[in-house]
Amino acid sequence: MYRTNTCGELRLADAGREVTLAGWVQRTRKMGGMTFVDMRDRYGITQVVFNVETNPELQEKANKLGREYVIQVKGHVAERTSKNPKNPTGDIEIIADELNILNASELPPFTIEDDTDGGDDIRMKYRYLDLRRPAVRRNLELRHRMTMETRRYLDSKGFLEIETPMLVGSTPEGARDFVVPSRMNPGQFYALPQSPQTLKQLLMVSGMDRYFQIVKCFRDEDLRADRQPEFTQIDCEMSYVDQEDILDLFEGMAVHLFKELRGVELKRPFKRMSWDDAMRLYGSDKPDLRFGMQFVELMDIMKGHGFSVFDNAAYIGGICAKGAATYTRKQLDQLTEYVKRPQIGAKGMVYARVEADGNVKSSVDKFYSQEVLQEMKKAFGAEPGDLILILSGDDAMKTRKQLCELRLEMGNQLGLRDKNQFACLWVVDFPMFEWSDEEQRLMAMHHPFTNPKKEDIPLLDTDPAAVRADAYDMVINGVEVGGGSIRIHDSALQAKMFEILGFTPERAREQFGFLMNAFKYGAPPHGGLAYGLDRWVSLFAGLDSIRDCIAFPKNNSGRDVMLDAPAPLDQKQLDELQLEIAPEPEK
Amino acid sequence: MYRTNTCGELRLADAGREVTLAGWVQRTRKMGGMTFVDMRDRYGITQVVFNVETNPELQEKANKLGREYVIQVKGHVAERTSKNPKNPTGDIEIIADELNILNASELPPFTIEDDTDGGDDIRMKYRYLDLRRPAVRRNLELRHRMTMETRRYLDSKGFLEIETPMLVGSTPEGARDFVVPSRMNPGQFYALPQSPQTLKQLLMVSGMDRYFQIVKCFRDEDLRADRQPEFTQIDCEMSYVDQEDILDLFEGMAVHLFKELRGVELKRPFKRMSWDDAMRLYGSDKPDLRFGMQFVELMDIMKGHGFSVFDNAAYIGGICAKGAATYTRKQLDQLTEYVKRPQIGAKGMVYARVEADGNVKSSVDKFYSQEVLQEMKKAFGAEPGDLILILSGDDAMKTRKQLCELRLEMGNQLGLRDKNQFACLWVVDFPMFEWSDEEQRLMAMHHPFTNPKKEDIPLLDTDPAAVRADAYDMVINGVEVGGGSIRIHDSALQAKMFEILGFTPERAREQFGFLMNAFKYGAPPHGGLAYGLDRWVSLFAGLDSIRDCIAFPKNNSGRDVMLDAPAPLDQKQLDELQLEIAPEPEK
Repeated sequence: MYRTNTCGELRLADAGREVTLAGWVQRTRKMGGMTFVDMRDRYGITQVVFNVETNPELQEKANKLGREYVIQVKGHVAERTSKNPKNPTGDIEIIADELNILNASELPPFTIEDDTDGGDDIRMKYRYLDLRRPAVRRNLELRHRMTMETRRYLDSKGFLEIETPMLVGSTPEGARDFVVPSRMNPGQFYALPQSPQTLKQLLMVSGMDRYFQIVKCFRDEDLRADRQPEFTQIDCEMSYVDQEDILDLFEGMAVHLFKELRGVELKRPFKRMSWDDAMRLYGSDKPDLRFGMQFVELMDIMKGHGFSVFDNAAYIGGICAKGAATYTRKQLDQLTEYVKRPQIGAKGMVYARVEADGNVKSSVDKFYSQEVLQEMKKAFGAEPGDLILILSGDDAMKTRKQLCELRLEMGNQLGLRDKNQFACLWVVDFPMFEWSDEEQRLMAMHHPFTNPKKEDIPLLDTDPAAVRADAYDMVINGVEVGGGSIRIHDSALQAKMFEILGFTPERAREQFGFLMNAFKYGAPPHGGLAYGLDRWVSLFAGLDSIRDCIAFPKNNSGRDVMLDAPAPLDQKQLDELQLEIAPEPEK
Repeated sequence: MYRTNTCGELRLADAGREVTLAGWVQRTRKMGGMTFVDMRDRYGITQVVFNVETNPELQEKANKLGREYVIQVKGHVAERTSKNPKNPTGDIEIIADELNILNASELPPFTIEDDTDGGDDIRMKYRYLDLRRPAVRRNLELRHRMTMETRRYLDSKGFLEIETPMLVGSTPEGARDFVVPSRMNPGQFYALPQSPQTLKQLLMVSGMDRYFQIVKCFRDEDLRADRQPEFTQIDCEMSYVDQEDILDLFEGMAVHLFKELRGVELKRPFKRMSWDDAMRLYGSDKPDLRFGMQFVELMDIMKGHGFSVFDNAAYIGGICAKGAATYTRKQLDQLTEYVKRPQIGAKGMVYARVEADGNVKSSVDKFYSQEVLQEMKKAFGAEPGDLILILSGDDAMKTRKQLCELRLEMGNQLGLRDKNQFACLWVVDFPMFEWSDEEQRLMAMHHPFTNPKKEDIPLLDTDPAAVRADAYDMVINGVEVGGGSIRIHDSALQAKMFEILGFTPERAREQFGFLMNAFKYGAPPHGGLAYGLDRWVSLFAGLDSIRDCIAFPKNNSGRDVMLDAPAPLDQKQLDELQLEIAPEPEK
């Protein structure tokens, strides 16, 4: 037995007890004849005292300890003279009788403290040291509690966690698969699942009724910031349910998680918004509702007054930032630069201040009479002291997305996006399809198994682009934490869907034959939802990136710099797999 | 809302209630003017009645229902006249007012009942139908409860579930890796983990203190019966522990699981046996202790009496089957054939009966006096009515393994291996190394990170084959459900271990450099254990194979016959991965 107690649990009530602790040396301080060593483990920090008068040899040994040495200390618990109220063990210290060095440590490349990390590259290379920092460790603790509470909730609702296979078939639709060559079947490959979508539907066909799984999924995408090639999904599916049943049950889960993990009581029911409204009012399918600043469309008011930018625009719209009329010219220029950045792509920005007397003063005053400007002010419900910001463009959807970025930036600048406030929302009635310029065809906005809204089914033949789906996303603070849909359970409708998506019947059969076959034997109505665990943990942890709620994340090139993976294979392995590396294609 | 209740929950107390049920048609029976439909879902079966007198049209509709149709029935609960005590809902039936066919079904390829399955090939191809059979579904329910209870126990002991990556580096030691080509890094590959061994050790270096994970692992082995290329491990690791701490904690987990899942109270502490004793007394490192029949070695007694088979043997040993002297010549011949099968490989078998008068009658009487045979009888503690079975051979270890097979077979024949009895055992003190004829060198019996026993460390230089390890297996009913070890935490000792295993320093650094580096920065003493979830669930479920506790298993060629995976890739995918299929090598 290496320890009687952890470094986080001893209190004043333990004074006098003989204890043994084990842990890392956080730091040592020599003061007069005393040496103080802070010992750290996952549970906390305890101060150990070595006294030259009572045991000079032991103190000498303690003086030689380096940072991150692994030690074991035997001694007794004593009340401290100068207590540290910030540390839960701060009322006591250990008077050491024995010190064993369990392992030495070289000087770490960065100090193991919350506010020192040596930068991203070093952190990731030495992730095992980075994880010793309490700030990072707490994220993994939160993640553990989140999965425990999720399982507890779903289990209590009759869900069964069922593992689906990791080695499945490749479906070249959508994102790219990671593939796995099969040695036993040369020339053939498994794929790693992008999600267990079809398998969980088969589980519904098999009568499992309520399924969930917290499961790794894989997507071989060119990594943008905050994407990982492997990520974790809370994957759920239910039978004999309609959309209302699903939203209700998973709203309940969100309420449970917020209460248990953040101590926050959410109000039910969550707000709901159609995809159309979300795009129209916020320019986003995941609006951040911690603050208002809804878009106001200005085509009727601002068009046709000789300002050619607006006169030629397909969309003119703006937001009203309460109380921001104090923005200086410099601040406004910076905002203009912000929306003109290539990532956002606006051509320019028009602004207008509402002055104390109610007059509106704008950057385009020469084109607009005060009367028109007052009309505009009214449309925003703007008051003295408010700032109006307007964008326009020849593509309404693109312009709305630019205006969305501006709105979020103003939210940041005005401090309206408090990480400890949570605004939950269901976005519903998504379009079934979206047009792909790249593929020159309609693509499924969610996936090909999504049920079209019953009332829109006739449109499948006449105007598929107008068809809405029984699909829904849960959005919290502008983050899409999850989404799902009612699925098609009718094989004829599923076949029609594949047809609209450009599958030949052969290709549909080749790729999804097993599902279409299964639907012939009594598929129940079913639907479900999947949450992105990584994103949800980051949200709870108040992190800006998902990376720090993952123990060993990959970098933007998909590399694990600690393990140095991926790496070339031995020739023997390649031979066994009957694979050759092709020469680099000419560029 | 599709249903007010499931098909498993209505009772007599619900009589009179208006309800809506949804589920599958298990079967329909027409009796006089009544049609009875058994509706099935995950939760049970409820009888629905359609009456020609009250609603002829509805009854007509019910008469057309086929097996496995998906239906919704509205009606009210009524007490049955002829109750079915075998069915929890057997006191009631539903008098139907409305019948909706939610989905039709073709005639399934086999009947959805416990005792009809159409054979393994059909079952696996239509696994989604096979899973509808309650016998199969119950295995998945048990698996869910097993993982829930495992998590509950480990969480209560302060373990954190931490996900380790699935895309790691390849380590061509040991079993073969499944590999994953990296499109972003052409010519380079990830590997899927055979276990998170090194990663969980890094988590100990990072101070996580107590880690677990229920996690998919992958091994590209030629599949023997009851192996799967992907399998699930309950993977655990702890810091600042010695072997005793680990055995104690995981014994507690076994006790918890047996109690919660099987209602069995296990006695603690579990029996412990050294690997040496297990091999000597049972010829196996995973002895089935539900019954005795320990091996008795007979070299001293039986050698040198002119029976050349024994005189030339390196090992002579036998077992005593209580009360089996009644075995006929035919039965004994069959046993001899059994041990002579190529899978077992014994040359022959000697037997001896203890007769009512205490005399021993053997198949080699002409070589042995009754005096010698009595001595043998005494060695076994045999009594009148017992049967003694003896094997010999020129390789002691091989002969013991043959005798082990004979012992297990006798256990089966005498009904000593009751699936509802559980004999738990720790096998400890495993050898550190085993000699590989194929590789012509010592290999790690567990893995290269296993700590040698402190007292055996000097032998590393002089007689490595004699070194024992701090390694242990948990064995239940002859099944190794899990195993683990105390790990090396000293980088010098780890380097020495790699050297003994034939790694050059370069190769050790290339493959395990990250771990050896990590050990430089204060690695704590640590150890752990991993359970095979699939095996443990089969044990609880009383299954002979792991396959039926896996939702979608693969066959012996590693194929998923339902998904038809693996399969050839599109040329476009191969090009993107910069891969070519090599021509088939000449045989």
